[in-house]
Amino acid sequence: MTRQTILIKVGGGKTINWDFIAEDLRKIIRTHKIVLVHGANAMRDQIAEKLNHPTKTIVSPSGVTSVYTDSRAIDIFLMSYAGLVNKKIVAVLQGNRVNAVGLSGVDGSLWQAKRKKHVYDVTNGKTRLIQDNLTGKVTRINIRLIKILLKNNFYPVICPPAIDESHQIVNTDGDTAAIETAISLGIKKVVFLFEMPGLLKDFPNERSKIDRIDRKHIDDFVVLTQGRMKKKLLAVKQALETGIETVYFGDGRMKRPIISALAGTGTIIS
Amino acid sequence: MTRQTILIKVGGGKTINWDFIAEDLRKIIRTHKIVLVHGANAMRDQIAEKLNHPTKTIVSPSGVTSVYTDSRAIDIFLMSYAGLVNKKIVAVLQGNRVNAVGLSGVDGSLWQAKRKKHVYDVTNGKTRLIQDNLTGKVTRINIRLIKILLKNNFYPVICPPAIDESHQIVNTDGDTAAIETAISLGIKKVVFLFEMPGLLKDFPNERSKIDRIDRKHIDDFVVLTQGRMKKKLLAVKQALETGIETVYFGDGRMKRPIISALAGTGTIIS
Repeated sequence: MTRQTILIKVGGGKTINWDFIAEDLRKIIRTHKIVLVHGANAMRDQIAEKLNHPTKTIVSPSGVTSVYTDSRAIDIFLMSYAGLVNKKIVAVLQGNRVNAVGLSGVDGSLWQAKRKKHVYDVTNGKTRLIQDNLTGKVTRINIRLIKILLKNNFYPVICPPAIDESHQIVNTDGDTAAIETAISLGIKKVVFLFEMPGLLKDFPNERSKIDRIDRKHIDDFVVLTQGRMKKKLLAVKQALETGIETVYFGDGRMKRPIISALAGTGTIIS
Repeated sequence: MTRQTILIKVGGGKTINWDFIAEDLRKIIRTHKIVLVHGANAMRDQIAEKLNHPTKTIVSPSGVTSVYTDSRAIDIFLMSYAGLVNKKIVAVLQGNRVNAVGLSGVDGSLWQAKRKKHVYDVTNGKTRLIQDNLTGKVTRINIRLIKILLKNNFYPVICPPAIDESHQIVNTDGDTAAIETAISLGIKKVVFLFEMPGLLKDFPNERSKIDRIDRKHIDDFVVLTQGRMKKKLLAVKQALETGIETVYFGDGRMKRPIISALAGTGTIIS
């Protein structure tokens, strides 16, 4: 029987525990194939500070916050995501007998993005056009590379940035890219690990965790949430509309983070 | 007929021209498979300066200079080699229709190194034992991953660091690792590109280029050279003793760098 593939997206927060994640993966790969996608925003912000180019955000006219990415920010992105964090994760996984191969969306044109050429920033009520923003939305996945690796028992560990139609390196939203990857590969189960026990009704009160959401009611929760979590829920909504069966939210700080999430200790959306 | 594989090692100097290299590779992949190994020392030193942790060197009792690598230096190494430089190279190659996949020696345990646990530094005549030096010599190559990629027409773009027997990330000499990789893959032709027209008899006089060296006389040139070039020649000597037929030195700053080197405009050692 072919092993089912699970995609696991791990957030880039400071308190995510990669030793716990690796211990879980070591067990999970006995019965499943896995594709890992990770963030690195905490490390990115830290390196950006040290290099005197702190991370800047912009706010769209519809109120969505995103990172402003000029060419120096892309450099810092590459250093932190594809360099420091990706390779340290790979080493921890290798130490747990998970034969990980780290890739960015640039490698093998894994994550092909459509560049957002014009974005608007609203600051103090003034709308400003930004033209040098190097960001894009992943619209096409080179699944051939992922499939070849999985078939040969290598586990891809993927992170932003992506590559656009003119082969420029662009920042991209990791959650959306992870969902696109899962859809393209026909993956049915997606796990999101972050620095919370699950989706919180009353953020940041960790006791207000929601156990289960029916896909029909996601919109009710999209309204409740802000910032990154709103984006995440919108990506999840799209995922459930496009073939993914179940999305699990779980706590990336705790022991057995993936196995617990799959058992329903976080939030299950299906 | 199966296409012959060439390994190309490109130095990490500031004036290396990756557009020229990519143009050459685009032509070469019509008739050959390629494995690329690259350095990033200029960028590494620049980032290390900016992060207030400048690259330090140590000198062994036998007079060989090498980089001192503590854990912060490993972080900077990952940022510059595996992050910034590797992915920018991959993007340039993708833009030239060379389907490149960037990998560090950590990925898939590609470059397995034996850590040098004790190294000595001689400063002002005083010998000092250094115990936290995270460096090693690549002794085993996971050729399976490289072969799978090549078979599927992906071109691996490999850089240090390596991974040691206890799954720690360690700095390693790129030239030696490149040679080890070529030997393990049964590659017969290796091209080294750097910021010189070839091996110089009278460094840095670029008019003193040596056109051809017979493998029997390498030792005469090892005596003539210093620093990185001495290390490179020693690696080449080992290569020619272990199955590699021809090593080409060429100028990574010029147009048609690889095609010219293969045609003999640099230095040929065979």
